Amino acid sequence: MTTLRLTRDEVHDLATRTLQKAGYGPNHVRAIADMLTTCQMDDCRSHGLFRLFMCVETTRSGQVDPTVEPQLTLDDSAVVRVDAKGAISLRAVQAAMAPLIDRARSFGIAALAVNRCYHFSALWPEIEQLNRAGLAALSMVPSHAWVAPAGGTRGALGTNPISFGWPRSEDPFVFDFATSAFARGEIELYRRAGKPLPEGVALDRAGQPTTDPQAAMDGAMCTFGGYKGSALSIMVELMAGPLIGDLTSLDSMAHAQGRPEAPFHGQIILAFDPERLSGGQHSDGDARAERLFAEIGAQGARLPSQRRYAARARNTARGFVEVSKQLIDDIRAL
Amino acid sequence: MTTLRLTRDEVHDLATRTLQKAGYGPNHVRAIADMLTTCQMDDCRSHGLFRLFMCVETTRSGQVDPTVEPQLTLDDSAVVRVDAKGAISLRAVQAAMAPLIDRARSFGIAALAVNRCYHFSALWPEIEQLNRAGLAALSMVPSHAWVAPAGGTRGALGTNPISFGWPRSEDPFVFDFATSAFARGEIELYRRAGKPLPEGVALDRAGQPTTDPQAAMDGAMCTFGGYKGSALSIMVELMAGPLIGDLTSLDSMAHAQGRPEAPFHGQIILAFDPERLSGGQHSDGDARAERLFAEIGAQGARLPSQRRYAARARNTARGFVEVSKQLIDDIRAL
Repeated sequence: MTTLRLTRDEVHDLATRTLQKAGYGPNHVRAIADMLTTCQMDDCRSHGLFRLFMCVETTRSGQVDPTVEPQLTLDDSAVVRVDAKGAISLRAVQAAMAPLIDRARSFGIAALAVNRCYHFSALWPEIEQLNRAGLAALSMVPSHAWVAPAGGTRGALGTNPISFGWPRSEDPFVFDFATSAFARGEIELYRRAGKPLPEGVALDRAGQPTTDPQAAMDGAMCTFGGYKGSALSIMVELMAGPLIGDLTSLDSMAHAQGRPEAPFHGQIILAFDPERLSGGQHSDGDARAERLFAEIGAQGARLPSQRRYAARARNTARGFVEVSKQLIDDIRAL
Repeated sequence: MTTLRLTRDEVHDLATRTLQKAGYGPNHVRAIADMLTTCQMDDCRSHGLFRLFMCVETTRSGQVDPTVEPQLTLDDSAVVRVDAKGAISLRAVQAAMAPLIDRARSFGIAALAVNRCYHFSALWPEIEQLNRAGLAALSMVPSHAWVAPAGGTRGALGTNPISFGWPRSEDPFVFDFATSAFARGEIELYRRAGKPLPEGVALDRAGQPTTDPQAAMDGAMCTFGGYKGSALSIMVELMAGPLIGDLTSLDSMAHAQGRPEAPFHGQIILAFDPERLSGGQHSDGDARAERLFAEIGAQGARLPSQRRYAARARNTARGFVEVSKQLIDDIRAL
């Protein structure tokens, strides 16, 4: 595979020009280009420039509104609400970030409810942003009903990622993973490679376990971790759906009316101020958390995101990322 | 096994008399007896009358303070703090429940930080209580460092249960499970029965996978769901430990100084008001959640707690639970 070396600015410019050409308004362009660049610089390629195809296709089909500005609703509670009005989520979250941080510091804990958005991004960049403001944070989103509950036979749940982060003086502790056993993209890679799936990750259309990738695409994915992962996935549906007045993955699928549309739903982000929650014992807490991280490292176990931070350090030091020439050509042809 | 039939009042009386004899103060007696009775009536026997041994032994050894009253700290934030002062957690949570509910309704979201407690109970009864007040709720506690992180070799994490609940007009949706692959009590049952453990649930003292229950008791348990379960377990450590100014499972183990003491740490409970978080679209959200539950049921999959609610209905209807005569004799001999 031929790769080209792109600087951070070149990645950002490519995203910016592509989004502008597709009709995105300036605030959306900035929010989306920032996210794609952040992911690409961490070698998180599945959520980097690659996502420009989805951004362009969903505006061409008329599904995503590329210019509408989000509407922020603030009151005297610890809840910040932002209506994305059928746009991609990122601009809405960006508009709500400062009031979310402000409320978390005032009340000790705060919630951001993002409504009526299209969501394609990794959760960790938003979590990391809150961590860099000194807050712990937790986020969840549903998707389409592609995942069967434990003991079930067909899709009822989304891939339903959970991301959590804890602030550190160095790079924060952050994880971000789907509650499905496999990502849909992974199944597609197995299908293209003609390889069977591992046992226990998918069901066929009849609800029977399968290792055939095509049968899995026609059927449903399983959750990770058996009935426990299934329970967590249901929690994501409830917290990021009905709790914040938005759709479940089943509703999102119904909303698409059989068309191959991107999931349409909400997102919840919770922010926690360790200073307020610990009653002022924040630095003791930091020391305890660091002892735990040190013990995990001393055992030879990796913290989540460790590989990503290593990629970031390397790419930042050398001043470029390697991007497939084919990908760049395909993006330019959009 | 000979069993006796005990009414709800008889279960409660047996717990009450045993706790009084062990020196527990009246508020602690009521809080603990209520919890044990609730669990016993749901056939959740591992968290029922059986726990009286632990309650009595920990006061006899001087570890648990059976009379000290919790100290509640309230301010104008969404955080309620309660210091259990070295007592069992239940009385402290009970004392903080009304202000927690009040703040969740006022601010939309609220947190309860319980500090310096001994914790032996199931989490679901407290979650269910919040659900019956119309709130969604999430709780976590650490324990002792018995569980190895994914990729690790020895205990660094607790069994770290997570419990979540969602209010329904009927019995709430509630789950409550350990993030360890196995409960410590289960391993003990395998050891007594001379049966090998399943693959992947434990490590021996050298950090190698083992199916030998004794080697597992001397070594460490694994987390459920591989690196994802491990990441969640670390989240429980941070949320229910450093975030609220309390100990991690490693700290709790160190606090016991090699003595076979019960874990000593904190507990976090988060409460969410669907009315506030949904911007007044609570009933739409309820309908969406019910459609999801109905779809899961239609697939023949069980919701978490379904078996427990069935036991409750049966035991309530017939007016008694069956309790092992040996257990009752052993409790009376305490």
